Amino acid sequence: MSSIFEKTLLYDFYGELLTNHQKEIYELYHLDDLSLGEISEQLSISRQGVYDTVKRCDKLLDNYENKLQLVNKFLSNKEKINNVAKCADSVLHVLEDTEQIKSETVLGKVTEIRKICQQILEDL
Amino acid sequence: MSSIFEKTLLYDFYGELLTNHQKEIYELYHLDDLSLGEISEQLSISRQGVYDTVKRCDKLLDNYENKLQLVNKFLSNKEKINNVAKCADSVLHVLEDTEQIKSETVLGKVTEIRKICQQILEDL
Repeated sequence: MSSIFEKTLLYDFYGELLTNHQKEIYELYHLDDLSLGEISEQLSISRQGVYDTVKRCDKLLDNYENKLQLVNKFLSNKEKINNVAKCADSVLHVLEDTEQIKSETVLGKVTEIRKICQQILEDL
Repeated sequence: MSSIFEKTLLYDFYGELLTNHQKEIYELYHLDDLSLGEISEQLSISRQGVYDTVKRCDKLLDNYENKLQLVNKFLSNKEKINNVAKCADSVLHVLEDTEQIKSETVLGKVTEIRKICQQILEDL
């Protein structure tokens, strides 16, 4: 994962477990891309204080992910649901062309949909 | 949600955020259904100590759920995936009966699959 994408996902999942103060600094640094100096000036706290909070937040969020693996599961499930959607699109595409269709085409795709659903349910 | 079902789900999702000591007591009380007295005897700690830990764990897990809503989202997504699976089963059932099929039947179900996938992706 690219760093900003990873930081955003970690924050989406576990951000609510940070304090309001930690959230403010995390957002300014990682999401709004302000420098430590800019945040220090904006919030009237020391540059070292900002740095320590950013590092503390990174550690907390990484720790939550190591324990709960929510971002990991989210990415895996998202990929599977996207595959289901693609299968459905293929079937719909076939149906656009003809009213009477060969069952094999549909059978293959729908069987795949069924299989992926089973996988998702087992992994949830 | 029934109490034991709810406790099990909360524990599945957030149990790893408890200490080993808290996990042990939570499992004995909520999952193995031992009494406070039995746990007190088994672990050689006071009945009050067991009670306090159980209440503390309940509060911690409820608090995580209030903030992150993972159990809630899980139940909602599980229901949707089950609906996708049911649609796929309907299509497969139709295909068992004939090689050439009416496209409307398939179209309806696959359109429904496509819609549910979109919903899940938006809610993930």
